Amino acid sequence: MNHLRIFARRSLQWRRNNLRSPSPFSSSLPRSFCHSSAESNRPSFGIAFDIDGVVLLGHSPVGGSPGAVRRLYDDSGALKVPFIFLTNGGGYPESKRASELSQLLGVNISPFQVVQGHSPFQKLVNRFENELIVAAGKGEPAAVMSNYGFKNVISLDEYSSFFDNIDPLAPYKKWETRQEGAEEVHSRDRILSLRVQAAFIVSDPVDWSQDIQVLCDILRTGGLPGKGIGPQPPLYLANDDLDYQTAFPTERLGMGAFRIALEAIFNRVHPTPLEYTSFGKPNPSVFKNAEDVLRQIVTSVPHSDQRVGDHSNSGSHHFRTLYMIGDNPKIDIRGARQAGQPWFSILTRTGVFKGKDNHGDFPADLVVDTVEEAVDYILTRESTKQHS
Amino acid sequence: MNHLRIFARRSLQWRRNNLRSPSPFSSSLPRSFCHSSAESNRPSFGIAFDIDGVVLLGHSPVGGSPGAVRRLYDDSGALKVPFIFLTNGGGYPESKRASELSQLLGVNISPFQVVQGHSPFQKLVNRFENELIVAAGKGEPAAVMSNYGFKNVISLDEYSSFFDNIDPLAPYKKWETRQEGAEEVHSRDRILSLRVQAAFIVSDPVDWSQDIQVLCDILRTGGLPGKGIGPQPPLYLANDDLDYQTAFPTERLGMGAFRIALEAIFNRVHPTPLEYTSFGKPNPSVFKNAEDVLRQIVTSVPHSDQRVGDHSNSGSHHFRTLYMIGDNPKIDIRGARQAGQPWFSILTRTGVFKGKDNHGDFPADLVVDTVEEAVDYILTRESTKQHS
Repeated sequence: MNHLRIFARRSLQWRRNNLRSPSPFSSSLPRSFCHSSAESNRPSFGIAFDIDGVVLLGHSPVGGSPGAVRRLYDDSGALKVPFIFLTNGGGYPESKRASELSQLLGVNISPFQVVQGHSPFQKLVNRFENELIVAAGKGEPAAVMSNYGFKNVISLDEYSSFFDNIDPLAPYKKWETRQEGAEEVHSRDRILSLRVQAAFIVSDPVDWSQDIQVLCDILRTGGLPGKGIGPQPPLYLANDDLDYQTAFPTERLGMGAFRIALEAIFNRVHPTPLEYTSFGKPNPSVFKNAEDVLRQIVTSVPHSDQRVGDHSNSGSHHFRTLYMIGDNPKIDIRGARQAGQPWFSILTRTGVFKGKDNHGDFPADLVVDTVEEAVDYILTRESTKQHS
Repeated sequence: MNHLRIFARRSLQWRRNNLRSPSPFSSSLPRSFCHSSAESNRPSFGIAFDIDGVVLLGHSPVGGSPGAVRRLYDDSGALKVPFIFLTNGGGYPESKRASELSQLLGVNISPFQVVQGHSPFQKLVNRFENELIVAAGKGEPAAVMSNYGFKNVISLDEYSSFFDNIDPLAPYKKWETRQEGAEEVHSRDRILSLRVQAAFIVSDPVDWSQDIQVLCDILRTGGLPGKGIGPQPPLYLANDDLDYQTAFPTERLGMGAFRIALEAIFNRVHPTPLEYTSFGKPNPSVFKNAEDVLRQIVTSVPHSDQRVGDHSNSGSHHFRTLYMIGDNPKIDIRGARQAGQPWFSILTRTGVFKGKDNHGDFPADLVVDTVEEAVDYILTRESTKQHS
């Protein structure tokens, strides 16, 4: 097996000037792999990077991430090693996140290489394409959903603003309810005449008291706040992370905590318990999907009608090893360990995780200090394999 | 028995020009009752009014409340019938609430006649007088506690502002974290060196994501956010109302919903379940206390060192009937019914409660449309009694 060397020698063609302009509806696959038609020329390993705490801390690169990621390209800027970013975070379209990462890391990241907590929502477009749906969370939740193809989406903030007195604490809040990036202005009368058919928690909700109140209103009435009890519309959450690391010494509450709060209250005001579907790591389906996306990067040609996560062309390429590099034992490492072969888990102790031990039910296969060390380990290991 | 007539004839002396200026630390008892020394001259009934939805809707009188309350005074402005306001609401010192009610209703209300959800907190002054405590909720929670005599109280908003990165959603919040009425500026270094010894939820929390996060930080660490797990400091809540009526067609979530959310999350991040003490209606102790306050109004002379709720002088006066006038079947009516003799419950269907039926496990003794009708019923009934 000589994958890495072959890869490097062939100088796979994903060059900057070859990149399609990022479009949220196109897959923007690296063109490089179109040229390696022979199965034997395809790489037998790939990498999934968690973003927060691994390659970025806030909006700054961390752990030598620009240098580490650049090693996955050749000198001409063409990709050598297939990799993706696999994050439970979100709130912005994949195209926007890819642009931000490209700028911060100094390489060209395709939107197709960015898999966020809410990326699986696009698989629900067929079901809710023309239905009224609400999207909640920080950032631009409605823009995220519009970009996936949902045609009748409204942010929970804007939806709430259409109801007088729906939030009794509003007089005590001195903040903007309109979300950044909210371009479309909905007709109040039209929106109020429709039932909300589903609610999507795209990213961490900010105004919990309003969001829990209005989601309870939507979910307990069958989608018509202020009306009588009705069957619960579906609720989807981008992840179910109870907590996560930031610069604060102890974990901060995440979307999973919001879900616990919503569920506990909903179950007191509705005759049947809350039903919901959550995505995100450590769910094994996320790792299965990541493998599909990496395979797609290696094997596929881009089609103009393809969307991120549409893996109809992913073929039968076999990865011997897929590396998950993450800083969260409960999310990244547990997820990769539970997913099993071909996943190999690497825990980085970048910054805030310095003091964390590698223990628990799912210890990492490898623990390093930085993503730079992780990539160095991977390339050395794979190089050794190909020489052996 | 001729109480009402005697009361009217004696023109009991609680005149406006006789009122002591409202001070949050003085009881400001009506002086009138100092003059009726004989037990037989004392009234055998009293009234407790819920505020929101009964005498006020938002900041406007409702149900003819100014006229109704004025009937409890004689032509000279002296009090004829002992009454109090008994609300689960709060967020402002009793003196401020009394001034507001005086202005809106056109009569002189003493701070002693205002019993709020957080009024029982003052009984804890002896225990926490010099300890660091945090106070949460809309309005002026720290001012409320300072006025009760707590000497080392800080609002949860100000406390949170002392910790970098404690609220991961703060960058998405475009609002003021400093509370209105926050006069004192604490020393950050001093506050951070101290353990928080107790947390008080004075009124409905506004910024749930921050407040749940920081309360979890305080409660799971023994009062030192960012540190390791420790024994939970005491948590006190002014009420445990799951929901309440406003101008919105269906009930809005209250402090009880916040408690449910906090408890559900806390129990996931701390090895032992949340312990808390909640006050407010329908707790029978609230009605016992209300009876004590009404008895105090009838029997006591004011002492300069007396505080609201200090009933050491309440004597042994006997009320034949105490009327609870409220608009919330689950809170006011249930509470009065459970408290039993001498309580008589009157449900008003003012405004938002128009459509509510008088049913459930605790039906009201009487249902009327407005507080005006309720007072008319009471005065007629008591007048008939005294003539019979």
